[in-house]
Amino acid sequence: PSTQAIQLATERQQVLTKPPGSLGRLEQLAITLAGLTGSEKPTIDPVRMVIFAGDHGVCSEGISAFPQEVTAQMIANFASGGAAISVMAQALNTSLEVVNLGTVGEVPELPGVRTELIAPSTANLAETPAMDAGQIEAALTSGDNAAQRAHQAGCHLFIGGDMGIGNTTSAAAIASALLGLPPQNLTGPGTGLTSEGLRRKTRVVEKALARHGEDQTPLAVLASLGGFEIAALSGAILGSAARGIPVLIDGFIVSVAALIAVRQQPAIRDWLLFAHRSAEPGHQAVLNAMQAEPLLDLGMRLGEGSGAAVAVPLLRAACTLHNQMASFTDAGVSDQSGDQI
Amino acid sequence: PSTQAIQLATERQQVLTKPPGSLGRLEQLAITLAGLTGSEKPTIDPVRMVIFAGDHGVCSEGISAFPQEVTAQMIANFASGGAAISVMAQALNTSLEVVNLGTVGEVPELPGVRTELIAPSTANLAETPAMDAGQIEAALTSGDNAAQRAHQAGCHLFIGGDMGIGNTTSAAAIASALLGLPPQNLTGPGTGLTSEGLRRKTRVVEKALARHGEDQTPLAVLASLGGFEIAALSGAILGSAARGIPVLIDGFIVSVAALIAVRQQPAIRDWLLFAHRSAEPGHQAVLNAMQAEPLLDLGMRLGEGSGAAVAVPLLRAACTLHNQMASFTDAGVSDQSGDQI
Repeated sequence: PSTQAIQLATERQQVLTKPPGSLGRLEQLAITLAGLTGSEKPTIDPVRMVIFAGDHGVCSEGISAFPQEVTAQMIANFASGGAAISVMAQALNTSLEVVNLGTVGEVPELPGVRTELIAPSTANLAETPAMDAGQIEAALTSGDNAAQRAHQAGCHLFIGGDMGIGNTTSAAAIASALLGLPPQNLTGPGTGLTSEGLRRKTRVVEKALARHGEDQTPLAVLASLGGFEIAALSGAILGSAARGIPVLIDGFIVSVAALIAVRQQPAIRDWLLFAHRSAEPGHQAVLNAMQAEPLLDLGMRLGEGSGAAVAVPLLRAACTLHNQMASFTDAGVSDQSGDQI
Repeated sequence: PSTQAIQLATERQQVLTKPPGSLGRLEQLAITLAGLTGSEKPTIDPVRMVIFAGDHGVCSEGISAFPQEVTAQMIANFASGGAAISVMAQALNTSLEVVNLGTVGEVPELPGVRTELIAPSTANLAETPAMDAGQIEAALTSGDNAAQRAHQAGCHLFIGGDMGIGNTTSAAAIASALLGLPPQNLTGPGTGLTSEGLRRKTRVVEKALARHGEDQTPLAVLASLGGFEIAALSGAILGSAARGIPVLIDGFIVSVAALIAVRQQPAIRDWLLFAHRSAEPGHQAVLNAMQAEPLLDLGMRLGEGSGAAVAVPLLRAACTLHNQMASFTDAGVSDQSGDQI
């Protein structure tokens, strides 16, 4: 981050026609974005959204309320504009890419969908490592390539989204391994498990962690317990930060990908903004591990980057207020001292 | 609210391509707006914002960090587009009216500012009733007229904003009287009092309440302890609800105006949506009294309707997702049962 831009933006906030501090978190947000974009008057536009999709072998354990074929079907729904994130991308006038990393169901060629297949799904992480070395490398590279495309397009904000039936099981396992917390604390109902389903899912995560063992390096955990889309998200977050693009982090899945990235390279934490607190119960522990206080708390738990999309207008408001409000001097308004300046 | 529209919107939410409930509060927001606007597919646009401005006699007690002349100066800043709410109105593409109810400082004729003068300021509520019968009637009518104009313009959302140096003193006194809570619980730093200033302000509110006595009828409290802009806001809220226009409530000042309105006509509560939790400490008790859970909690405390403006995109997102997302059937996506429907 640029200390000069932070300094200039901080000074600017003090002279705008409002009591100092009265815009609350929007003030710090503008200052933070100034530092990240290296501009006293920051913008987040153009925004790039990228959804990474992939299937999970652990679905054979019966850990999701939805059938596995939904991953492939939702890719088509992203492309045709009917999914939540598609609707939001259009409403927000942001670009949206979909990267298909491999699904069990068949996906035809679709406009706006990049086909970067690794395998039809990961292996069943309850039984065996989810990815081999080539697969995790391919997924990380897919993510980094997405960040590179965003950089080439001059984007000032990167939003990653996830699609993958079964991925809250993978994310709970990763978080449990990285945070050293019991699976029970991090495993939740996902798309809508019954309490019986949740007990089964928790046992699957426990089994996976017992199988995984003690290895705590972020990449080893990711390969053993991750998913293609989670690995790609980690790669995209690292790649965006490395290229100086701020990243707006969505919910549980993307936060787990961010945690892996931060554990690999702690300095990238500065580039992360946190959009919302998910209703998925494991999210809070992951946020805490990154000292993250999200902007929104609306009980969302959809994934796809949808919570980040809903927070985009807050970032835009922070920038617009910061950039366009009049100063006390310009507006001829008296400041706190009563001096008209 | 239309029970038929609520029913249809509730059914619609169940068939959209997402796990039921996964959009969190945005789902109920869409359903609520469907009921309020009488449409299965609701919209909040066009949005009308109206800022009511007026000065407070209680400023002679030294209860604000800013000098009284700022009220008039800010009216000019609203008109020239430099204030926070002006910047937001332009960014959100909403109409913005400013109603000048009376200021100590002189305000010239300005585009977009309606001059509906009642008096240069209210009387000092620490010593005497703030408004006489004619004045409170005039202020309530100004507010109702604003709601009528919004109705005639076909608006689907009303946002009221406040400008009046000293108005957190008035609002704290009103809230204290209506809620039966000690002034200390409801009096805060406003635009930025020191702790010494806050003690003085609290004593002024205590003195006002002792002078006011026990009369708890909302209109008697409003006349005795209110401000022109707070009374106008109450009138605008009642007038909007009566005409079937949902109202998005801003922070502490507007919430106190809403509390007066709800105490007069409890049925209007249904028409109120709450935008944000203000950093002004008295706000929470006022929200609690109306069982209100605001959408945002960003530490804002600017007034002008700015917190409501920042929440407008959340309402738009709720409507757009509800109206434009594909159904499981349309998108060919399997539902929770695994049936492709």
